[in-house]
Amino acid sequence: MTARRRQIEDVASALFGERGYAATSMRDIARALDLQGGSLYAHVPSKEAVLWSIVDDAARRFHAAVGPIADGPGPAVERLRAMIHAHVGVLAESLERASVYLFEWTFLAPERREQVARSRAAYQARFERVIAEGGAAGELAGADAKLAAIFVLSALNGLPRWYRPDGPLPPAAVAEQFADMVLRGLASRVPDETAPGARLPVGSGG
Amino acid sequence: MTARRRQIEDVASALFGERGYAATSMRDIARALDLQGGSLYAHVPSKEAVLWSIVDDAARRFHAAVGPIADGPGPAVERLRAMIHAHVGVLAESLERASVYLFEWTFLAPERREQVARSRAAYQARFERVIAEGGAAGELAGADAKLAAIFVLSALNGLPRWYRPDGPLPPAAVAEQFADMVLRGLASRVPDETAPGARLPVGSGG
Repeated sequence: MTARRRQIEDVASALFGERGYAATSMRDIARALDLQGGSLYAHVPSKEAVLWSIVDDAARRFHAAVGPIADGPGPAVERLRAMIHAHVGVLAESLERASVYLFEWTFLAPERREQVARSRAAYQARFERVIAEGGAAGELAGADAKLAAIFVLSALNGLPRWYRPDGPLPPAAVAEQFADMVLRGLASRVPDETAPGARLPVGSGG
Repeated sequence: MTARRRQIEDVASALFGERGYAATSMRDIARALDLQGGSLYAHVPSKEAVLWSIVDDAARRFHAAVGPIADGPGPAVERLRAMIHAHVGVLAESLERASVYLFEWTFLAPERREQVARSRAAYQARFERVIAEGGAAGELAGADAKLAAIFVLSALNGLPRWYRPDGPLPPAAVAEQFADMVLRGLASRVPDETAPGARLPVGSGG
């Protein structure tokens, strides 16, 4: 990717995140880059092509960071912890691009939207599979792995809405605390059957 | 609220959720209601007034459902479980309205946006306070209560993006499984120091 192309996508990510994809025009993007509207088309064919490039690039980065860990060796709980770190790492690399990937991808044209939907499902399935493996190995409670994967990814994906890179918490610290909550939340052993916090209603977690 | 007004907001919520607030026009809303564009203005003064009404109504419902539990009696862990149920209940009452409240409120004009930002911060603080009370009482680990509140609300607020009311899981079942994961995740007792799932790195959770 050329430097100019990257710059266009950075500016577009900021605008899409701020106003939404639909409310951002090619003219807005050109203006933010100090370009004439027409000359932007020398670099990118359409607004949707810019969205696609941002989303496709982000999807690849998430899969590239998390896939080898999910498919690698080691206990499921350790892989899950590392996957949470990797996921937060990709989010934090560019919160604006991640935000477009997470929340604006539905504005893609149908064929590309379908492709992204499949990629996202496959990504969620990586978490689901590792959680299920942890359950099968007795490392994690046999929680509904699909619901647990949704729970974990939803919790992590809130990050672009609240995280401030100039704040006191580095991304790795957020990832570590979230991983602790997730892994304890999915732990195979109930802490103390008599403690109120450990009370499990009939039929849950099983 | 009149039936017509409610109908306008329902239709607007669906359109805002689907296309985004910025990309939805008053004409779109009128068309979906089979009204002339002009006659819509007899009911609502502007598109932003519709957004405000949807957001303000949702904010009130969340506070009304969760506030009395947060401020009520009982162990923090039980209140937190009930708050999760109440929150999911309000989400599930109308996923479309909840979605507008959660994801489109930033399109409000500055004064109203500020007001909603304060209301949202106060709402998050209810969760934070109960989690901190649980920590102080030894019911929950003394996790960073603010980060834990963000974690919980982020996990719950993903619901409008994936939950299908016509699917197999009633909202209360989702709430119960999520509450189990949350309460185990914040539990004061480490399940088993030697189990991999319970491994806590130095400096975490404390």
